Amino acid sequence: MQVTILGNGSGGPFQGRNFTSQLVSIENEAYLVDCGEGTQHQLFRFKIRHDHVRQIFISHLHGDHVFGLMGLLTSFCLKKRTAPLTLYGMPGLRTLVETTSAVCGIHYPYQLDIHEVDAEQHALVFESPKLEVWSIPLVHRGPCSGWLFREKQRPRNIRPEKITEYTIPFPLIPGIKAGEDLILPDGRCISNAELTLDPPQPRTYAFCSDTKPSERVVEIVKGVDLLYHEATFTNEQAVEAELSAHSTAAQAATIARKAGVKRLLLGHFSGRYKDEAQHLAEAQAVFPNASIAEEGEVYRS
Amino acid sequence: MQVTILGNGSGGPFQGRNFTSQLVSIENEAYLVDCGEGTQHQLFRFKIRHDHVRQIFISHLHGDHVFGLMGLLTSFCLKKRTAPLTLYGMPGLRTLVETTSAVCGIHYPYQLDIHEVDAEQHALVFESPKLEVWSIPLVHRGPCSGWLFREKQRPRNIRPEKITEYTIPFPLIPGIKAGEDLILPDGRCISNAELTLDPPQPRTYAFCSDTKPSERVVEIVKGVDLLYHEATFTNEQAVEAELSAHSTAAQAATIARKAGVKRLLLGHFSGRYKDEAQHLAEAQAVFPNASIAEEGEVYRS
Repeated sequence: MQVTILGNGSGGPFQGRNFTSQLVSIENEAYLVDCGEGTQHQLFRFKIRHDHVRQIFISHLHGDHVFGLMGLLTSFCLKKRTAPLTLYGMPGLRTLVETTSAVCGIHYPYQLDIHEVDAEQHALVFESPKLEVWSIPLVHRGPCSGWLFREKQRPRNIRPEKITEYTIPFPLIPGIKAGEDLILPDGRCISNAELTLDPPQPRTYAFCSDTKPSERVVEIVKGVDLLYHEATFTNEQAVEAELSAHSTAAQAATIARKAGVKRLLLGHFSGRYKDEAQHLAEAQAVFPNASIAEEGEVYRS
Repeated sequence: MQVTILGNGSGGPFQGRNFTSQLVSIENEAYLVDCGEGTQHQLFRFKIRHDHVRQIFISHLHGDHVFGLMGLLTSFCLKKRTAPLTLYGMPGLRTLVETTSAVCGIHYPYQLDIHEVDAEQHALVFESPKLEVWSIPLVHRGPCSGWLFREKQRPRNIRPEKITEYTIPFPLIPGIKAGEDLILPDGRCISNAELTLDPPQPRTYAFCSDTKPSERVVEIVKGVDLLYHEATFTNEQAVEAELSAHSTAAQAATIARKAGVKRLLLGHFSGRYKDEAQHLAEAQAVFPNASIAEEGEVYRS
């Protein structure tokens, strides 16, 4: 699972940052997370293939997270997309998309479904053979949800030399990958442990933007491999963070530490900061394995 | 009067072009014309002051001309704008702005007025002490209007040495600037021609995007100093231009020639073209004083 950062700024294109958007990829599947204005420009700029995206997850309806959506949907039309697309987001997303489509004369050559998600619930909202996506209730001004990407447990890896050694018939292989032992024609039992290797650990990625520090978030993101948490402000603006229902970098790091995540990515920086050095220092003082989510960079969970 | 090009591309950020937007300035007044996605990024990129914009003119509601509007309006909110702002555009603009504002929780600290314009009428839609803005009915897929910026005739320039020579009292100066002669206390009449110099000729700029070639446009833009006319396609795609209600570069140049404009700017290029050399060649074969509207460049009318 890997995460490509398309934008790491909050409202206003100050200091040249772009608005929030990320592409989450797992093998040949890709998911777009938030879609601030200019997301399609960033996809073009970084030459990121995205026509295979089938699901877009929008955390909330503030402009810096959603004002690139209609442009992207329209561009898919111009490219004569036929693959279906599903949007997940807060109540109101359907009205936004449908009204804009009607007023602006957008006619979709592809199936567009919209799922409005209950921002209060930590629930499974999407499932593929490889992945589950769960909502993460956030605490912001109005309904807002993060997204937890949880890779499914993969089957065990069969050791190729054992297939030859025991002349394992093809129809038995799925069972062995699922953990079964092998019974040979002469009655001997070959244990699964001898036949297979552990699969890679399922990976997890949690996207949390925008939010005040939340104990509920700590519970939900416990132990994830990679946590993206908004860090709009530094300590100096802690009062403003509280008033605007955002987090400081230190608060994001505290969430990461309490949840015991493996790595923390900081983003959604206020335009008042020319760079993110102070955010990083304040976060690393609390949680050393913290990084700035740099635009155009790819992070592996 | 000067025109700054913020974007010169049509739908899809192909080849790195940006979506249509321009800033028209006349002394200390500024007007935004169209507002495709990423307009505020371009304003930031080119360091263009725009907080003093009081009017935004939107030609039509296709996304490549309007999907940057809500982001810009929101950014004005974040900057705590208090100056009023008026939007001019096609029917539906009010629904788009009001629905998006309601769903996305935008609360304006400034007065926002929306004027929906009849796309069939060539009418005066805005007037300042220096300028008139007239609608230009265009022929596109759905209601679409260009905008004719017509500087008002300025008062005559009084020759400073004449003020001293005839000890002209201050209260008489406005009348002299308006064309009156001067009657001296001894009864002599000093002609206005002796006292004043001609003011600069009022300048005109016409913005025409998107449209099929139109004889009505020819009539309305007759003799303008600067004409921006869309030139989405080259001759090779003339059929596609017709089908999509756009113009080729040669058609744009034909409009310019028929209307006897002084200079032609070409824009709204389809993403299929890597550069605009062919557009320019085909236009200049018809109307030599044609140029490409380059992003970031400033053109004087």
